Amino acid sequence: MEEYSVIGQRIPRVDGPIKASGEAKYAADLSLPGMLHGAILRTPLPHARILQIDASRAERLPGVRAVVVGPDLGNFKYGFLPTTRDESPLALDKVRFIGEEVAAVAAIDEDTAQEALERIRVDYEELPAVFDPLEAMAEGAPRIHDHAERNVSARASMNFGDVEKGFRESDHIREDRFVTQPVLHGFLEPHAVLASYDSSGKLTIWASKQSPYFLYRNLSTALGLPLSRVRVIQPCIGGGFGGKNESFALDFAAALLSKKTGRPVKIVYSQEEVLTAGRRRHAMILELKTGVKRDGTLVASSCRNIADGGAYTSVGPLTIYLCGVFLTLPYRLPHVKYEAFRVYTNKPVCVAQRGNGIPQMRFAADCQLDMIAQDLGIDPVEIRLKNAIRSGDRTANDLAITSCGLSKCIEKVAEAAGWEEKRRQPRGTGKLLRGIGLACNSLVSGARLRGHNSSGAMVKIHEDGGVSLLTGATDSGQGAETVLAQIAAEELGVGVEDIQVSRVDSELTPVDPGSYGSRVTSIAGNAVKAAAGDARRQLAEAAAERLDALPEQIEFRNRRVYVKESPRPFDLAQDRLISPPAAEAEPKSIPMGELKERREAQTGGKLQATERGMSFKQLAQLACYAGSGKTILGRGSYAHDIEVPNWETGEGNLSAAYSFGAQAAEVEVDTETGQVRVVSTAVAHDCGRAINPMAVEGQFEGSISAGLGQALLEEFTLEEGSTLNPSLMGYHLPSAPDMPPVKTVLVETHDPVGPYGAKEAGEGTQISTVPAIVNAINHALGVWIKELPITPEKILKALEERGGQRT
Amino acid sequence: MEEYSVIGQRIPRVDGPIKASGEAKYAADLSLPGMLHGAILRTPLPHARILQIDASRAERLPGVRAVVVGPDLGNFKYGFLPTTRDESPLALDKVRFIGEEVAAVAAIDEDTAQEALERIRVDYEELPAVFDPLEAMAEGAPRIHDHAERNVSARASMNFGDVEKGFRESDHIREDRFVTQPVLHGFLEPHAVLASYDSSGKLTIWASKQSPYFLYRNLSTALGLPLSRVRVIQPCIGGGFGGKNESFALDFAAALLSKKTGRPVKIVYSQEEVLTAGRRRHAMILELKTGVKRDGTLVASSCRNIADGGAYTSVGPLTIYLCGVFLTLPYRLPHVKYEAFRVYTNKPVCVAQRGNGIPQMRFAADCQLDMIAQDLGIDPVEIRLKNAIRSGDRTANDLAITSCGLSKCIEKVAEAAGWEEKRRQPRGTGKLLRGIGLACNSLVSGARLRGHNSSGAMVKIHEDGGVSLLTGATDSGQGAETVLAQIAAEELGVGVEDIQVSRVDSELTPVDPGSYGSRVTSIAGNAVKAAAGDARRQLAEAAAERLDALPEQIEFRNRRVYVKESPRPFDLAQDRLISPPAAEAEPKSIPMGELKERREAQTGGKLQATERGMSFKQLAQLACYAGSGKTILGRGSYAHDIEVPNWETGEGNLSAAYSFGAQAAEVEVDTETGQVRVVSTAVAHDCGRAINPMAVEGQFEGSISAGLGQALLEEFTLEEGSTLNPSLMGYHLPSAPDMPPVKTVLVETHDPVGPYGAKEAGEGTQISTVPAIVNAINHALGVWIKELPITPEKILKALEERGGQRT
Repeated sequence: MEEYSVIGQRIPRVDGPIKASGEAKYAADLSLPGMLHGAILRTPLPHARILQIDASRAERLPGVRAVVVGPDLGNFKYGFLPTTRDESPLALDKVRFIGEEVAAVAAIDEDTAQEALERIRVDYEELPAVFDPLEAMAEGAPRIHDHAERNVSARASMNFGDVEKGFRESDHIREDRFVTQPVLHGFLEPHAVLASYDSSGKLTIWASKQSPYFLYRNLSTALGLPLSRVRVIQPCIGGGFGGKNESFALDFAAALLSKKTGRPVKIVYSQEEVLTAGRRRHAMILELKTGVKRDGTLVASSCRNIADGGAYTSVGPLTIYLCGVFLTLPYRLPHVKYEAFRVYTNKPVCVAQRGNGIPQMRFAADCQLDMIAQDLGIDPVEIRLKNAIRSGDRTANDLAITSCGLSKCIEKVAEAAGWEEKRRQPRGTGKLLRGIGLACNSLVSGARLRGHNSSGAMVKIHEDGGVSLLTGATDSGQGAETVLAQIAAEELGVGVEDIQVSRVDSELTPVDPGSYGSRVTSIAGNAVKAAAGDARRQLAEAAAERLDALPEQIEFRNRRVYVKESPRPFDLAQDRLISPPAAEAEPKSIPMGELKERREAQTGGKLQATERGMSFKQLAQLACYAGSGKTILGRGSYAHDIEVPNWETGEGNLSAAYSFGAQAAEVEVDTETGQVRVVSTAVAHDCGRAINPMAVEGQFEGSISAGLGQALLEEFTLEEGSTLNPSLMGYHLPSAPDMPPVKTVLVETHDPVGPYGAKEAGEGTQISTVPAIVNAINHALGVWIKELPITPEKILKALEERGGQRT
Repeated sequence: MEEYSVIGQRIPRVDGPIKASGEAKYAADLSLPGMLHGAILRTPLPHARILQIDASRAERLPGVRAVVVGPDLGNFKYGFLPTTRDESPLALDKVRFIGEEVAAVAAIDEDTAQEALERIRVDYEELPAVFDPLEAMAEGAPRIHDHAERNVSARASMNFGDVEKGFRESDHIREDRFVTQPVLHGFLEPHAVLASYDSSGKLTIWASKQSPYFLYRNLSTALGLPLSRVRVIQPCIGGGFGGKNESFALDFAAALLSKKTGRPVKIVYSQEEVLTAGRRRHAMILELKTGVKRDGTLVASSCRNIADGGAYTSVGPLTIYLCGVFLTLPYRLPHVKYEAFRVYTNKPVCVAQRGNGIPQMRFAADCQLDMIAQDLGIDPVEIRLKNAIRSGDRTANDLAITSCGLSKCIEKVAEAAGWEEKRRQPRGTGKLLRGIGLACNSLVSGARLRGHNSSGAMVKIHEDGGVSLLTGATDSGQGAETVLAQIAAEELGVGVEDIQVSRVDSELTPVDPGSYGSRVTSIAGNAVKAAAGDARRQLAEAAAERLDALPEQIEFRNRRVYVKESPRPFDLAQDRLISPPAAEAEPKSIPMGELKERREAQTGGKLQATERGMSFKQLAQLACYAGSGKTILGRGSYAHDIEVPNWETGEGNLSAAYSFGAQAAEVEVDTETGQVRVVSTAVAHDCGRAINPMAVEGQFEGSISAGLGQALLEEFTLEEGSTLNPSLMGYHLPSAPDMPPVKTVLVETHDPVGPYGAKEAGEGTQISTVPAIVNAINHALGVWIKELPITPEKILKALEERGGQRT
């Protein structure tokens, strides 16, 4: 018999049917009686003082029910850290980027709301603006926030080991400057919210959020409501990727407008609003210096990071922090120094995005590693194997590595990609040149941050054996519902189709920090495992009483519940025992001791394999319905049992588990047009035990698509802070034709803390996509392009500079 | 200090504001994108075979999306007992009463749906109908159901003691025939439902139900869905009174139409549909024979009951069962015999209604008791005190009486009503005559029935100290949310405003049988108490750790949590200790032992009153948010720990607690017009500990209003099965001007099993309203009218028959 029944199965997503059929209800699909439509007034200026807002003409427009402005929420400001709360839902005194939210209206329909916006007059005093982070840091630059000298919104500074000593001991040192662009999160469902405030002082809000409990806290503070009166209900979420963790203007505005009008208010952003004023990934300038031994052994790295944060701080401090922490992974590196400045500019705000600051650092470091390998004449695979972090290691900044399949990932991906052959073979002739590149990645499996950290889960057994799983975790599109359902199913010995996963309802579901930091499978998954285990224990008691056994003897498997010592194979499809023996007719009520004795008498002391048990459904009926039957509610909670790392120094173990992976990309470059096509990719990933290999592969493919966009395609075209390409087509989000085939190798390890040994699988792969592609382009062309995205123009320019000569 | 902080307080209803403001959302208020409107085709014939249904013309009507008929649910039938499932949601082969549901349509709007109904052609073979239960039982009557000989749908037969011996030993015997009419439940919100079925095979349904979990089971069976895929969500409920326990045609039809169309479907009944085809209270003909000793001591009663059940069985067997069981309460009565026939007629179906069968029996028995008292020249108060059941009694049918304040209720109500004086004083002169009457009542506090019996509850602590209470119980308008919130608040030492009570969502809330049988306060209340206690224990552990004490030393009160040995009064309004002592500055972290030692050193061994504690909010933050903080989920379950009574014999203890009460009514009769006006009433009720006296009084007033309607006003005018007065005005539901002032005396006992000693308060009083009024009319006029309602016509006829002479 297999170790597990449900874990490790390629199970189609439980939310697949309703999403494929279009029945899934997203926030924008919802409506309530008497509902009003809200819209947001955005400023056309990148930097200006608000002198006066006159909404009287808007208020007089028939059909307009309310207008709200920043001061309607008092001086409420929010942000990631209590010390960096510099953002108000609607602008208070100044606007700081084009598209910043200034006012909101609620009207009887969308057209009226839009017309009302045009009738709001805002008197501004224009201020000089600054768009480049280096200019913003310069003496005399316009100051965007009064408190921020030289426009520095956040700093990070880390020193591990002795970097100067490291460089002294190095045989070879390189210094390179890498530049990344801001990119879109790329969710296809723009932000949307429906808020309904009633006169009992209760706010019910349906919002598209990865972390609904953040919104619950923010609205509680902003509106002065107890948390128990802020009911955040989660509809289906059309993607997040870090872009739906936070609360935004529309959330507060809808709540406030509903409170003011006494009617439900819906606000839905357009994709254009997301593209012009929405959050994005941090652009960074990374000056990276690395020293190695002659054999390629990494000795020291120092990095200076200027991150363009846009107009507000948001989670920026965490982004530059993580960026620095992951200078030390996935390679052994004893001496590390990191200095980062997150700088305000008059542009939209940069925040967390899949990998949160880590992809930028690993793009720089993994490309530089290839440069070093080239300098030293070492194969990129070899240099990575030499430096790869291993199980039992502790990094310079104290990340404790437990399960680790990195070396195997490198070997496997090289094999899967045909590395040896492709690296050796001619790169092509004529205008089309091919190359192959490699890079590695590592990520937390749920980061330990300050504040609320634990995930809760609850399992409710229905009297027919169905199971409701209540989790505070969010499936923002990544397949979490399916994976969590599998965990509950395995624990209870039922099928995944028996589990009904509920979306968050802050009134009813247990609290969870949300879907970020790759915490859902590992942390919420452990909570679900605990809750299902708790329910199982209660069921086992009822079963034990009926079957005259001890609760710990009761086994749950394949929808059967039986006394452990006598399992017999059960045919799930047929709902019957396989080849039932003659003893089947044995009355169930015979005490175990007596049954055993009889058997022993019959068989000369040798207990035959037989089963004393019942179906899970029968047990549920018994435990939940009949006689003294009661609701079986299992509860579980989980947080990594580690200390919070030191925020000031960056030292300390950030997670109880780390994922590892390696990725190869083969590219074909048209030297006449500069077009790069990713021909194929291969991914090997140590996600511990893959709970659902199909879901894991889906995550890899999504990661590659996003990484490919960042490497080659995506770019906001801004002119004086104004977005010139505010459509998905103009912005060039990758689409199906851009996607290469993906070969996947699961390098399964058994993580000691993850549920069933599972670790992160949804973010890590994106980290190595960019450097793998950049390294492959170098392999094809012999040029290094260190500024993303690598557009045809940059290719052609680099080729021109190289003078047509291969290095 | 008071024993309790929240229990016993007159707390306004927590759902008051949204109901008063009109914001409360009832099922009819809800809508979903793409929603269709459903309507039901009802038959105009009282009894007919369906030959054919042709819906093709309806289906062709533009805007019509689907038509369903009975066979679309296969042969699905439902009802209270597995053996009495004779009803299908839409008629299958026959129709059996005018208004029975034959088909349902879903269309883009209500008008189209109505027009479609007109286009459905049903070919019937008309059958002879029977409307009177006695005629229906007669030889040769039309047979309404094939299985039911003489149209008997259910029987009950009980024998306790030796009734023949009892009659032989009696000094005086009376035989009387009492007749009750069917009455409307009188909820102001007609039945409504919104169903949404999706392609993942999940049905979400918003339905106005007292017992949403019944619907959950019925829909699961009817549609072949697992229970975990039937999500019943409860909107606000606009009254139930027993009329919203069951599933009805609209529920199944909406679900089926949604499944068929792939779109949400809403069906809302009109008040006219409720009045013509809805459920109602059983009409009964009760032939009651009672024997007493000369001193008025009750010895024996036998009763024959012919109950008019209408066209289907529904919960009728339970109604006639309870009717018989309550022949033995609230008076001592050693010998009892009961024989009941529930008879099918071609009329709308009769079911449970407030008191479920008991008010009919007690009308007969408590009026007959007055007749006997009159016969023997005993005062009605005296004869009741003589026979009143007492604590420690066991009735002939084995109902075990624990807490019992009946005698005190009789005394108190007599006093409150001015009995002595009003009974003696002249009854008036001229055309207006006054009289005063008295009657008693008793009821279960949650009946122990077969099937699912336990209530579950869950308490979730929010990190700011707010509390979500998840209960499967239903507030159908009776104020349960407030009472359950009080229980949770008391248990956690917080205010009722800190508790947010959730309405049922079968996916998320624990299972509860529903709101019937006066089980909410006593049974669901105990579950809530257990769940809150469970949460408190978890919180106490966190508090104990912080306060260096044992969890059992931790006290919760007035939003403070402190070490039990040193409570100091706390000012709730000011959120501070009252007169904080100098020791306030004592650091909180000093271990208790050390603190005690220091104090003893300072005070010469005498420990001063002080407090080591924190606010509930601080504790919640500590336990739920900070560090290893996790969701605190308390769970609780409760069922009366008694055996299910014997269904065949009616013997066995039906509840673990019984309420008792007495009621006096003073009436004024206009002997010229026959109009009766209830001048005033007084109620004394032993509901154990009144958790919320204001809510209890509200229930008394509602009970009196309903009883008054049954006694004097309400009547369906039927002609050949057709309702001639299908409006609330024509039917004459009592309204505000009909209501007398109500004097209330709470006779509080401490029930050993009820939460905080509480018992039933919502149904019992209605039982004694009718006999109190009838007895008062007799006192005024000297005539006995034994057939309800006592209309002016009946008064005038009785006066005429008496020939103007007082007896």
